[in-house]
Amino acid sequence: MTVLPVLPVVAETSRTGIMQIDAPYLLFLGDATDQLAAKTADGIARWRADKVLGQFRLPGCRADLGLREVTLEEAAAAGARSLVVGVANRGGIIPPAWVESLSRALSLGLDLAAGLHQRLADLPELAVQAERLGRRLFDVRQPDRSFQVGTGVVRSGRRCLTIGTDCSVGKMFTALAIEKELKARGWKADFRATGQTGILIAGSGVSVDAVIADFISGAAEWLAPANGEDHWDVIEGQGSLSHPSYAGVSLGLLHGAQAQALVLCTEPGRPHMRGLPGRPLPSLGDCIAMNEACARLTCPTARVIGIAANTAAMDGPQARRWLDETAAEFGMPAVDPLRDGAAPLVERMLP
Amino acid sequence: MTVLPVLPVVAETSRTGIMQIDAPYLLFLGDATDQLAAKTADGIARWRADKVLGQFRLPGCRADLGLREVTLEEAAAAGARSLVVGVANRGGIIPPAWVESLSRALSLGLDLAAGLHQRLADLPELAVQAERLGRRLFDVRQPDRSFQVGTGVVRSGRRCLTIGTDCSVGKMFTALAIEKELKARGWKADFRATGQTGILIAGSGVSVDAVIADFISGAAEWLAPANGEDHWDVIEGQGSLSHPSYAGVSLGLLHGAQAQALVLCTEPGRPHMRGLPGRPLPSLGDCIAMNEACARLTCPTARVIGIAANTAAMDGPQARRWLDETAAEFGMPAVDPLRDGAAPLVERMLP
Repeated sequence: MTVLPVLPVVAETSRTGIMQIDAPYLLFLGDATDQLAAKTADGIARWRADKVLGQFRLPGCRADLGLREVTLEEAAAAGARSLVVGVANRGGIIPPAWVESLSRALSLGLDLAAGLHQRLADLPELAVQAERLGRRLFDVRQPDRSFQVGTGVVRSGRRCLTIGTDCSVGKMFTALAIEKELKARGWKADFRATGQTGILIAGSGVSVDAVIADFISGAAEWLAPANGEDHWDVIEGQGSLSHPSYAGVSLGLLHGAQAQALVLCTEPGRPHMRGLPGRPLPSLGDCIAMNEACARLTCPTARVIGIAANTAAMDGPQARRWLDETAAEFGMPAVDPLRDGAAPLVERMLP
Repeated sequence: MTVLPVLPVVAETSRTGIMQIDAPYLLFLGDATDQLAAKTADGIARWRADKVLGQFRLPGCRADLGLREVTLEEAAAAGARSLVVGVANRGGIIPPAWVESLSRALSLGLDLAAGLHQRLADLPELAVQAERLGRRLFDVRQPDRSFQVGTGVVRSGRRCLTIGTDCSVGKMFTALAIEKELKARGWKADFRATGQTGILIAGSGVSVDAVIADFISGAAEWLAPANGEDHWDVIEGQGSLSHPSYAGVSLGLLHGAQAQALVLCTEPGRPHMRGLPGRPLPSLGDCIAMNEACARLTCPTARVIGIAANTAAMDGPQARRWLDETAAEFGMPAVDPLRDGAAPLVERMLP
């Protein structure tokens, strides 16, 4: 345990300074094998349409976001600043077929950003060229800076954190929907990204599951710093306190976030915890109790203010019944942000 | 979150293979400014006297473990396999005054092991020499291998984990005392180290706070693997679920450990959480409840079986009264392992 009485310790070497991916983006769909492979690009186009010039596809690409088709040269001429890899393949690698396009984007003046397992910076061809041209390579799966250990010292500002019964239950989507609703109501609000897709959408953030374990809560404190009482940070949660693989990440994030408002995300009907056949999901009630108990270590007023469900597997009436019954059972709003938006959640967050 | 449906992902590059520091050790006390600076060496000498050939001190050294003074040449001739740096200075660096001795140890055939912030391997003089001679440099503060994500799948064997109200309350000491008592009673038992001093004592282990966040519980599962029902792993805890800086590490370790027996370590009278003036320690009752609730995610029978207190700040009668009252309040043994040993704890662990 890195405990020093005076100054918290800084770990990790700083690599590229503070990450901020510049817009406008050209979204690279590569040779995506299906629409789902381009879900990162889809998220960017959905939530940050104003940042996106268009899509760039290679021959054989089977994904289509319905955006304008823009060549690398057209994008550069139109002022694009970054080519964002919005496609993933099995294994998370950068296939040879992409490299010529990525290299040409660099030569045309664009930065590159990706959230794959294989790093752009690990391809010597790209690394050398970027260095020579002064272009930046953003590998958002790895943190690009050092952090201090968290302190738990109470800080100003309003914060919301999406938590989950499990991984991949809509925590990013819900946070983005809440940010959008807050802004629509005239609040200052920032979505704070903690995973690779979220970082590519926001243009900045920290992939908290890739931080050194001692610095999880410190990274969260850095990501959502003290702010005015007229400002909301809406922080993307990760994992679940109930997931045996990732609960440490979830708890550090919960402590570092100091969120007054927690929103519990879930997917009704999921048969088991993601990646762990045979392990059932926790009950919503247990999840609420455990998260509130833990969160209050650093934010004594923390409480779960609503439930966000991914009801894609249900038809409309089924979903409505589940949401209504859940809202009644727990005495708080229960919505599917994709069907309903986040207004009922935001109403419970506001003073 | 690194979630794959089939195979868990391996992160971190493997560096030196599986860490196993070979004995016998020569303990290097350097130019320690006082006895406390050599507390790592003291721990090794206390708990692994059978591994220790003697101590080696530089001129001006103010620490003395009362061991035989052995020169590097004498140690090599006597079969020493490793020179273990058992001294720390402010900043955790390797001062120039040590390098000649460390280098000579390498040339005499010894490996080097240290748990400082500055890595042995980062001193080119030592790194080049070790490479040339085929010697090993153990920097135990950094993990030396890759891990998989935890699974939470129930595994065989008996496990005990020391947990804490705070950092630095005697979790390592207590675990070592329990291991010793188990062995004295004829059980197979292994102390499983999770911090740098513990690793130097055990000769192997994982510095879990230095693991990538996604792999905390996976590292703990690796550290204390499935075993026979006649075998105890006694796992050194880290941090505290109640420490806002490090709780993520503590939770991942708790989930990965799958310990049936938890021992709560504390220091009565400590004014605030370590490194965080103004933040009070949790109550023992809250700590027990929170740890049991979390532990049961991966080990449904987990329970706190006793309390281990560091009562160094109390006189004998004060300590006895505190321990007796605490035992009565919680209905479980409460001991100071340094004063009392760990027998009452072990009696509660055994079937």
